[in-house]
Amino acid sequence: MRLFSDSQVALQAKRLNIASVAHAGIAEILSLAQSLEHEYGIPFVKMDQGSPGLPPNWVGIQAEIKALESGVVSIYPPSEGIDVLKKAGSRFLKAFLNVEVDPRFCIPTAGSVEGSFIASTICTQMKPGKDTILFLDPGFPIQKAQLAITGARWRSFDIYRFRGNALRDKLEAILSEGNVAALLYANPSNPAWLCFSERELQIIAEVAAAYDVVVIEDLAYFGMDSRVQYGTPNQEPYIPTIASYTGNYILLLSSSKIFSYAGQRMALLCVGEPLFETVSPALTERYHNSGVFGATLVNSMLELLTSGCSTSAQYAYAAMLNAACDGALDFSADMSLYASRARKMKSLFQKNGFEIVYGLDEDREIGDGFFFTIGYGAYSSEELVMELLYYGISTIPLGSTGAELAGVRCCSSQMTEPMMSLLEERLDLFRQDHPTL
Amino acid sequence: MRLFSDSQVALQAKRLNIASVAHAGIAEILSLAQSLEHEYGIPFVKMDQGSPGLPPNWVGIQAEIKALESGVVSIYPPSEGIDVLKKAGSRFLKAFLNVEVDPRFCIPTAGSVEGSFIASTICTQMKPGKDTILFLDPGFPIQKAQLAITGARWRSFDIYRFRGNALRDKLEAILSEGNVAALLYANPSNPAWLCFSERELQIIAEVAAAYDVVVIEDLAYFGMDSRVQYGTPNQEPYIPTIASYTGNYILLLSSSKIFSYAGQRMALLCVGEPLFETVSPALTERYHNSGVFGATLVNSMLELLTSGCSTSAQYAYAAMLNAACDGALDFSADMSLYASRARKMKSLFQKNGFEIVYGLDEDREIGDGFFFTIGYGAYSSEELVMELLYYGISTIPLGSTGAELAGVRCCSSQMTEPMMSLLEERLDLFRQDHPTL
Repeated sequence: MRLFSDSQVALQAKRLNIASVAHAGIAEILSLAQSLEHEYGIPFVKMDQGSPGLPPNWVGIQAEIKALESGVVSIYPPSEGIDVLKKAGSRFLKAFLNVEVDPRFCIPTAGSVEGSFIASTICTQMKPGKDTILFLDPGFPIQKAQLAITGARWRSFDIYRFRGNALRDKLEAILSEGNVAALLYANPSNPAWLCFSERELQIIAEVAAAYDVVVIEDLAYFGMDSRVQYGTPNQEPYIPTIASYTGNYILLLSSSKIFSYAGQRMALLCVGEPLFETVSPALTERYHNSGVFGATLVNSMLELLTSGCSTSAQYAYAAMLNAACDGALDFSADMSLYASRARKMKSLFQKNGFEIVYGLDEDREIGDGFFFTIGYGAYSSEELVMELLYYGISTIPLGSTGAELAGVRCCSSQMTEPMMSLLEERLDLFRQDHPTL
Repeated sequence: MRLFSDSQVALQAKRLNIASVAHAGIAEILSLAQSLEHEYGIPFVKMDQGSPGLPPNWVGIQAEIKALESGVVSIYPPSEGIDVLKKAGSRFLKAFLNVEVDPRFCIPTAGSVEGSFIASTICTQMKPGKDTILFLDPGFPIQKAQLAITGARWRSFDIYRFRGNALRDKLEAILSEGNVAALLYANPSNPAWLCFSERELQIIAEVAAAYDVVVIEDLAYFGMDSRVQYGTPNQEPYIPTIASYTGNYILLLSSSKIFSYAGQRMALLCVGEPLFETVSPALTERYHNSGVFGATLVNSMLELLTSGCSTSAQYAYAAMLNAACDGALDFSADMSLYASRARKMKSLFQKNGFEIVYGLDEDREIGDGFFFTIGYGAYSSEELVMELLYYGISTIPLGSTGAELAGVRCCSSQMTEPMMSLLEERLDLFRQDHPTL
């Protein structure tokens, strides 16, 4: 039996001016869930939002309080970031990725959303004719949506059928058209939790180099592939990264997930040296400056968008990165909670007739972490989101992520034990009402 | 006698790759000053940067520490801002401007630089053909430079010869061309410290309304016109604002100067209700949303640029705004230090043959505050900046601000008593070497 009736859902939808429940957008679906929860006092099992479910890292909080008490926050932050954070970023990349990136090339941004906006914008403006970002989907919808601000173009494909050597041919076919300025992916990825292997990263680097394409690697879920024991500083295994294979890269290093610091909008954008030093006449023409990529990124973009970012949060991030390098802060252990929740959630779903949509990662089983994907019979993404809503479970449709396959995204971050029990009960109800064929 | 020789300046310029000292840009001049100071150990009288010279407001620091300790910063901030700040912003506008702005229309941004970027971008994208921002100069160069990111157009004029009724004719002539989406000014203005009167604000509102132009009012130096005793909550005199004369406005309310909080990148962007509710098919087409101005600003711009802004800084700003409304925090008294410094600096300059370039504010003498402008004989802006540099005084050329008149901008914020004595000595040397005719 459903927890909410058709008329209850219809009533809330009407109040929210949702014209068609069947064709509601993500924001509308989430509002509808909130509204149902609020109106009828039935708590939702929230698997929609990708917000951290742990307290903020205390090392960061303490450093931030110290910075505030010191009085340093009265003056503008340097646009290129404070030295202590730039150095900590460089040290962190060496300790966990085993790559050398000079502190000069590590630039703080107001979250990786700003980093992604800046990266996409500068790449699509630096070479005439190269005006398109290629997204290796399924991916994070905001990174496409934000391109509308400048009018940059994008295209994408679902990588699921193009892993390993097939990736090379697919990339060749697209990049050889010549209009792609940069390609972007996350590793592990949101929502499918796919991880490129070392071999695939090498392929991406080679094809990108052949067609002069920048590789933007989003490390939002840094080292959260739970199948491998990452997270010991300066020791193998190192986290796979494109920076091992090309200098023509931008890494986006968010503090939101690994340090549960989403509220402070703090990330690093790290640029490969050859790219940082590239001179672009198109940038000179647009920004009336030297045209140097790195200087343009800092002085003509970051400075002009937000004039740098929160001083105290920069001190916090520096302290957390350094503590991780010292071995005094084990972010990997903190994150393992999400993996164990995901494991449990997946088994509940599977027990009740659901399947993991993106279940294979090249030739391995998909890992457990922050996100996973599920499908049910022949339900479309939108149908399944709506159907789960009737059972008090909120998710995100895969269609919005560029996925070819139908299903929904589930996030493990908010799944406390009481929520897990609710999920179990509700999936049981769902199965009774929806016998699979 | 100069403090630095031609060969010393030439040597540092060479080290910094400055091709021509006579044609150096602002950033180059500032680097040159820093480099001379560092190399020869002679401290500069720094009047170039507009960074606060007071400690950060303690009410904000305390609130921010409390927010950090509460653990609230682990999750993403709401894109539209936290309720307590939205309400505090609304209350503050009522208390000091005597205007009613619902909390819904008060949106936190990562500093007014982000606010200004968002305001200019959305205004130039909402109506086909209206793609230009009109700047009432002299003004803050960053607000023009940031338009290059989206490719929005701008034009400007120096308002000095167009005050009072002359302003109406000048605005009519430009706005009647039809391509201006919004006009932007600061009150008081950077660098000239000009303040529009109530009558002029009414003129601006009337002409803007006639040509459907949004008015963007930058209140970075909120209530810092020291000629009038502003700053008592809910009591006349209220600070003049465009919001008294039109609903088609955006106010930019920075925390950087009035609360000495520049390091935390925190501001409010406040939108008039009729503008907030405007529906634009062009916005729908670009962002695939409802096209409602306010919803687009929050969900399709702020969310996609930085996903909101620092949670703890939002709590800080809310606490400071509320304390000001309670009469427990007198920002106006804090700011009077800048005015008294400016008064003293101006008299030193005038004693030594300099003149205040923008000396009249419509029919009154210009007020004292954060910035003022000076000129010397027939020196061009760039010549005077360079010449003062030889005497260990760093300033900004007015040419970069859209000023018609020649001179430099001076900032009073860093002028401690020892700096004031240095300034006095050096201006005396300057006068001896440069007899005015």
